[in-house]
Amino acid sequence: MPSRRWGSDVSRLGLHFLLDVAGAPFERLDDLVLVETALVETARAMGSKVLGIHLHRLAPQGISGVVVISESHLTIHTWPERGEAAVDVFTCGDPDRARAAVEALPARLGARGHRLLEVRRGGS
Amino acid sequence: MPSRRWGSDVSRLGLHFLLDVAGAPFERLDDLVLVETALVETARAMGSKVLGIHLHRLAPQGISGVVVISESHLTIHTWPERGEAAVDVFTCGDPDRARAAVEALPARLGARGHRLLEVRRGGS
Repeated sequence: MPSRRWGSDVSRLGLHFLLDVAGAPFERLDDLVLVETALVETARAMGSKVLGIHLHRLAPQGISGVVVISESHLTIHTWPERGEAAVDVFTCGDPDRARAAVEALPARLGARGHRLLEVRRGGS
Repeated sequence: MPSRRWGSDVSRLGLHFLLDVAGAPFERLDDLVLVETALVETARAMGSKVLGIHLHRLAPQGISGVVVISESHLTIHTWPERGEAAVDVFTCGDPDRARAAVEALPARLGARGHRLLEVRRGGS
């Protein structure tokens, strides 16, 4: 049974990164292996243990799914025909390490642009 | 292979609800069956087809995981010892139907309070 470990400076429940990428090549956003590798490497760079990978292909194109990590999750939905993807990273781990890992993701997907929103969860 | 269907009035990639609930009983937030049922019923109320359920228990308490739906996903992380949970619902389906389903979730978890943030994803 996985345990939940807390980063020392996360005062609330967790930190949630909402990453929207744009201008990425169709081929990359429609490549299940590439997308899976990008998410798993992001999780590793965050120092997270991967508990499960549940990605699937959509018709006629697109990848959708989740990587469950010890502290929370990463999700992705890609729209190859628009060159866009929406990625979420929710973590109770180290915020700086997670942020650095998330910021490396647009380049892995070949994106020309991205928008990153950071939301502290809980503690209302 | 599941297909992606669009709601008629979603101009961007999708609609993302970030729901933080508070004041919920320890027993409910630590009950895997109750949490799974709440998420699956939310998905059904949204008109979404459930493709997979990947929830797990944390030590010493808490539930964490994802329900993969045809249009995207629902995720949850609970902190029974704090009476809190963080829920995400990402959908490309009908926004009003999804909002109504999400707004019914705090009561299902027995929460006394909640905070709901709505973010339109993509289209940057």
